Amino acid sequence: MKATIERATLLKSLSHVQSVVERRNTIPILSNVLIEASSDGAIKLMATDLDLQIVESVSAQVEQAGATTISAHTLFDIARKLPEGSQVSLHAAEGKMLIQAGRARFNLSTLPRDDFPVIAEGDLPTSFELPAETLKQIIDKTRFAISTEETRYYLNGIYFHVSDDGQPVLKAAATDGHRLARVTVPRPDGADGMPGIIVPRKCIGELRKLLDEVEGSVQISLSASKIRFGLGSAILTSKLIDGTFPDYSRVIPTANDKLLKIDPRSFEEGVDRVATIATEKTRAVKMTLDRDKITLSVTSPENGTAAEEVPGAFQGEGFDIGFNARYLLDILGQIDSDLVELHLADAAAPTLIREDDRSPALYVLMPMRV
Amino acid sequence: MKATIERATLLKSLSHVQSVVERRNTIPILSNVLIEASSDGAIKLMATDLDLQIVESVSAQVEQAGATTISAHTLFDIARKLPEGSQVSLHAAEGKMLIQAGRARFNLSTLPRDDFPVIAEGDLPTSFELPAETLKQIIDKTRFAISTEETRYYLNGIYFHVSDDGQPVLKAAATDGHRLARVTVPRPDGADGMPGIIVPRKCIGELRKLLDEVEGSVQISLSASKIRFGLGSAILTSKLIDGTFPDYSRVIPTANDKLLKIDPRSFEEGVDRVATIATEKTRAVKMTLDRDKITLSVTSPENGTAAEEVPGAFQGEGFDIGFNARYLLDILGQIDSDLVELHLADAAAPTLIREDDRSPALYVLMPMRV
Repeated sequence: MKATIERATLLKSLSHVQSVVERRNTIPILSNVLIEASSDGAIKLMATDLDLQIVESVSAQVEQAGATTISAHTLFDIARKLPEGSQVSLHAAEGKMLIQAGRARFNLSTLPRDDFPVIAEGDLPTSFELPAETLKQIIDKTRFAISTEETRYYLNGIYFHVSDDGQPVLKAAATDGHRLARVTVPRPDGADGMPGIIVPRKCIGELRKLLDEVEGSVQISLSASKIRFGLGSAILTSKLIDGTFPDYSRVIPTANDKLLKIDPRSFEEGVDRVATIATEKTRAVKMTLDRDKITLSVTSPENGTAAEEVPGAFQGEGFDIGFNARYLLDILGQIDSDLVELHLADAAAPTLIREDDRSPALYVLMPMRV
Repeated sequence: MKATIERATLLKSLSHVQSVVERRNTIPILSNVLIEASSDGAIKLMATDLDLQIVESVSAQVEQAGATTISAHTLFDIARKLPEGSQVSLHAAEGKMLIQAGRARFNLSTLPRDDFPVIAEGDLPTSFELPAETLKQIIDKTRFAISTEETRYYLNGIYFHVSDDGQPVLKAAATDGHRLARVTVPRPDGADGMPGIIVPRKCIGELRKLLDEVEGSVQISLSASKIRFGLGSAILTSKLIDGTFPDYSRVIPTANDKLLKIDPRSFEEGVDRVATIATEKTRAVKMTLDRDKITLSVTSPENGTAAEEVPGAFQGEGFDIGFNARYLLDILGQIDSDLVELHLADAAAPTLIREDDRSPALYVLMPMRV
């Protein structure tokens, strides 16, 4: 193959694909990006970790069609350091690729394109579109709750499923057993009858980065074992997590009768401040709930005590409840409105947090003993 | 003690002093900052690691004079999170300090001020001034060469000494055995007869940060074992390294007869580019010197080869020489002029690098076998 491509175009595309490539690989070709120049003036860049695959097409001047694979991180580092505005010539022949730009020449080892593993998509019967903006919100409001415990692999992703709540909806949920985040959006055309799927954390991360550059809609196709996201010039394909997501709806409390309405910003800042003296081990913040008087406090055997009053409207009999400060901050960080609702039962029961009853996102947080 | 201080003032000052405090301390009081409020409306903040000590004075409303010590990093974190523009009240009594700002209250454990270790400065007979700008340049152009090898503790700092090179000068030098950096400035009044001193790396780092906020001159006082820097409202006192700095002047080549004049920017970029494929272990860049043609190249058994021609004027018979790319980039990063001189002898001899013969800074770099 022989082709010339603008440095900025190459760099942008490599920044997407190299991020799928793991830093350490036992299979050498997994460190590589597949570069395929076709005679119609396009270069396709492809990277994979065997579970997640990205393909991106960019325009280039192709002199000679062909394909090879080359170290993704090395090529990315080279592209970063090449002079701005330069034209990069790529010429692959006899197990080497010659890269030239300006006065710089690199001659890098390649591995044959035929050895490059491609994820077989198989049949993807379910197919629908989601606005990029909606998909961004779904991810932002749920991903922080994804479990990182590898033994609970079925929680290491976001669970997407359809259901009928009076109207047809698509739900996305993530939980680590301590907190749950769920977003509900109107079911897009074509999603009817889709299987419940768990999209892995790494796919969610790469997808979220790509979404920042996408306007309009994302094409989603899936089966029970694979999902493909069409994002303009990039296509992201991922295996799904082969496991059963727990029936999370059972942990969403429905009868919590104590309601706290509070400004999420002063609540968030107050929690952040009193948590300053909490030690890494016990990140518990105590909320003392009295009618119209909410006190946040932390007691640390090492450091001392911290307390802050936050204005809020509380209905019900006063009591104390503790939460992990980090988890509370994660949730409050996703609340955009002027008011947030906490539906509480008692000091040991899961608490429901949401903007209001029309909000697409809801959060469930387990209390801590304080 | 009882005093009120503006949050911005407290935060700025704490950002200076907390950085002297080590994250882990076996002696608990070393984690603390000494806060001393005096009846003349000033608060003094002081921190130490037993080798380096910082004292900073800030204005405050003092209701009741007194002093105590409190965790430096905790107080800094609290000050960071307090609302902008707030007034912070500090009230120490009975082993506790109550900190209040807005609706937030912190009650933190203190340790008695009498247990706080203070570095005894002793007599500091040498005393002179240096413009902050000059001191910044001295540090920037030498600190990268400070050795990090703890076994060679006498190289873990910048060596300052006076000498007579036709005119009275003050010299600052640092080396790790692979490279040497030296800056020469006119000897300031009062520095005559000063002992040669080695200022430790950590003191240099803290000093450099403080210099960014200093205009005018820095007051320097020193003995053979201690040094004090007066920087406006802050005073930095450090023990000096008790060791003998090697007679570095012997490694500065004087008879290198091959001269390369080259644009430092294209040289730097070229080295950075070809070094992309160098592995962490062998960071060697080969320079092939021909009359008016300089070729930089790297050969990596894993990755392949990289080469770039850099325009330059070379006098002498052509030869090849190798340098550690990182070391070369460190030096070139300090060259501000349009041209840099490399004085070479052969592939095994130390190379002298400088802007020109009037430049205050000079660098010596040992070659690598390539």
